[in-house]
Amino acid sequence: MAKIAPLSGFPELLPEQRVVEREIIASLARTFELHGFANIETRVVEPIDRLAKGGEIDKEIYVLQRLAAEPDAKAELGMHFDLTVPFARYVLENAGKLEFPFRRFQIQPAWRGERPQEGRYRQFTQADIDIVGRDTLGFHHDVEVVRVMVEALGALPLPPLSFQVNNRKLIQGFYRGLGISDVTTAIKVIDKLDKLPAETVAEQLVEQAGATPEQAELCLRLATIRVPDTSFVEQVRALGVEDELLETGLVELAAVIDGCASATSERVSVEANLRIARGLDYYTGTVLEVFMAGYERLKSVGGGGRYDALASDGKTTYPGVGVSFGVSRTLIPLISDGVLAGSRKVPSAVLVAVTDEDAREASTAIATALRARGVACEVSADAAKFGKQIRAAERRGIPFVWFSQADGTHQVKDIRSGDQVEADPSTWSPPEEDLRPQVVTTRTTTLEENQ
Amino acid sequence: MAKIAPLSGFPELLPEQRVVEREIIASLARTFELHGFANIETRVVEPIDRLAKGGEIDKEIYVLQRLAAEPDAKAELGMHFDLTVPFARYVLENAGKLEFPFRRFQIQPAWRGERPQEGRYRQFTQADIDIVGRDTLGFHHDVEVVRVMVEALGALPLPPLSFQVNNRKLIQGFYRGLGISDVTTAIKVIDKLDKLPAETVAEQLVEQAGATPEQAELCLRLATIRVPDTSFVEQVRALGVEDELLETGLVELAAVIDGCASATSERVSVEANLRIARGLDYYTGTVLEVFMAGYERLKSVGGGGRYDALASDGKTTYPGVGVSFGVSRTLIPLISDGVLAGSRKVPSAVLVAVTDEDAREASTAIATALRARGVACEVSADAAKFGKQIRAAERRGIPFVWFSQADGTHQVKDIRSGDQVEADPSTWSPPEEDLRPQVVTTRTTTLEENQ
Repeated sequence: MAKIAPLSGFPELLPEQRVVEREIIASLARTFELHGFANIETRVVEPIDRLAKGGEIDKEIYVLQRLAAEPDAKAELGMHFDLTVPFARYVLENAGKLEFPFRRFQIQPAWRGERPQEGRYRQFTQADIDIVGRDTLGFHHDVEVVRVMVEALGALPLPPLSFQVNNRKLIQGFYRGLGISDVTTAIKVIDKLDKLPAETVAEQLVEQAGATPEQAELCLRLATIRVPDTSFVEQVRALGVEDELLETGLVELAAVIDGCASATSERVSVEANLRIARGLDYYTGTVLEVFMAGYERLKSVGGGGRYDALASDGKTTYPGVGVSFGVSRTLIPLISDGVLAGSRKVPSAVLVAVTDEDAREASTAIATALRARGVACEVSADAAKFGKQIRAAERRGIPFVWFSQADGTHQVKDIRSGDQVEADPSTWSPPEEDLRPQVVTTRTTTLEENQ
Repeated sequence: MAKIAPLSGFPELLPEQRVVEREIIASLARTFELHGFANIETRVVEPIDRLAKGGEIDKEIYVLQRLAAEPDAKAELGMHFDLTVPFARYVLENAGKLEFPFRRFQIQPAWRGERPQEGRYRQFTQADIDIVGRDTLGFHHDVEVVRVMVEALGALPLPPLSFQVNNRKLIQGFYRGLGISDVTTAIKVIDKLDKLPAETVAEQLVEQAGATPEQAELCLRLATIRVPDTSFVEQVRALGVEDELLETGLVELAAVIDGCASATSERVSVEANLRIARGLDYYTGTVLEVFMAGYERLKSVGGGGRYDALASDGKTTYPGVGVSFGVSRTLIPLISDGVLAGSRKVPSAVLVAVTDEDAREASTAIATALRARGVACEVSADAAKFGKQIRAAERRGIPFVWFSQADGTHQVKDIRSGDQVEADPSTWSPPEEDLRPQVVTTRTTTLEENQ
């Protein structure tokens, strides 16, 4: 039979790699729950007309059909391509049963039939937090939700992350105050700054957004402001543009930067970057993207913002603010590069050796005693020579092997150091750091170069 | 806009219901890991030719296609309908990188385009454990894997479960020793005993499996043996059939029953039931099904067994033994019936009240101090009157509300009892049972009737 090849765009992890993903998801969930976010999961499918809204994404939607369906049967279901669309639907469907503001986190895969490349997969896991209000949602939730994600990502063993925050009101107010006629187009043009040279962007502002060369110049100057504190307020004011919406945007962005300051660390920084616009139309205030040092080629590994209408049923509007973190986009490259690894292939901290098959029951009793105190262990698969049993533990990364002596005493061997001591299965525990598999961080050249 | 209706067969949970599913999955994972099972997740899709093998299930497979695909493009991917097919493929694909015997658990959804009914969904979560060997796999793993699932399910707050265990060698050896010509057909006919009256089954054994009426009678007598201990061995021997394979089957089944005895409890019983055959052809030794008291209408909520060829690449064969538990099949009906519920809608144990918007920062600092010691909390969404803030906590099931006094002291109120005491955010913790949302068990009439 031919060797089975992996499916491009559908990455899978070996058990020791899955340790990384699992620990990181558990850590994210822990932080989100400390902040009162409730977990939900949505079904993986949505009616196609809820997914396909005429955007770029439409052609990447996977539709679902039963194998036995009539050849001309119309497909009605598609797989969700993010967690926002199903969440908005969930809020509308269950609005009568939810308490608002509703704070939820959701960690699930999504699917896009796009061309696979590093950081872009056809099946990929996202971790989203959102706070949604009914009719209204206080601005302080913008500060809160960004700060929660700063804390959550700051608790992970990742290369340094940078939150780049801006505010749509600030940009829109600035452009309006400047007298630019087509603000929406101006935002779209400025969004190309990471792909096109500044002069080209300036030309397009003139040609496409109806700006004068002087206005275009000020737009570019605004977009180059990037500071780790609230000094951007003075820098923007120095540009001499006055507008009420701009003022609101400045106050809001300053509040987000200030509110996150005490949560930043060597691992996570937060900056005001007045060039961040996020292409998507529905953001109305705070916008942000997250980048990872040494992995700028992945573009953003997270992002989000404020949307005044996450969902609406015609009568009631549900404003929201949220941040999404690309779990697969971030972890798959780090795992492939060997930056992150699991410390062992199995949860077991101990392999209980078996002297001969008749003594298996005795070994099982020892394992039961260890498990009763939370020590994960397994009993040797066969009563091979002890050397072979030790090598079986070694190959799995199990740190300890347990031996029963003929005189009824027990010995436990740390197979890394070779140290062997007498031990009692009803009291012995491994050191805390050996109890569970750990995420091991190996700094690659790429990472060191960036530090 | 029209009210959004749920999609039939794709159940979703409210946040307080998701608490139940989440805690139960966490508990299962904990037990599996204590026994050294490593977690993996497989992608949700497989090549269609790996899924569709000409069986009954084929027409229920969901196939996937990009929305933008050509109308006559051939679909190549389908969603997995269980966790065994993708696991077998994963073992073959990664055989060179895995350590055998390979012990893994997998808790993921699967999809079947079948007619939805109670306990049968189009998207449903399964929890599977399997041990897989390369070329060989010791029989003691049969005992182990059943026992692990007995322990795992015994740790859950479910109605009483019953493991009904049998052994294919026992049945086949008995039929062979009895001189029945078509053993395979005989097994299929006996498998109908829960649908057809005994006389009809006896007639079919004669007509379809070439049995004499006396042989049919002995087959039926074998199938009625059901005991919670190893006394079945004597009962079978009393039927006077002799066969080497039968003998092996008796020894193996007795070992499983004996090996699980000390793990049984009021919540989980293990019985030898010599009528259990499991329709699927690939089982070759131990077979079992799990039933839940009061929910017999769901049929089995779990099952599994030994298969001598879980996977094969032509050169190497991988024998396995495993048990699968239907998480959705079990929990969705229990949650719908109100037998299981989450104790609150949010993870927060404390709502920190906000006196006025200017004091929000002070309330946030209190929340930060509580979180630093693992107390999940949220800060009130607005500075409404305290009565309104208390009711907001009440609606979410948050047990405690925290107030800051004008004199700089703090008070925490248990809103269930009304007790209010002075407290320090750097030392106060809620009682252990209030720290996290709990699974609450409510006994329904149905359940009481069955106890």
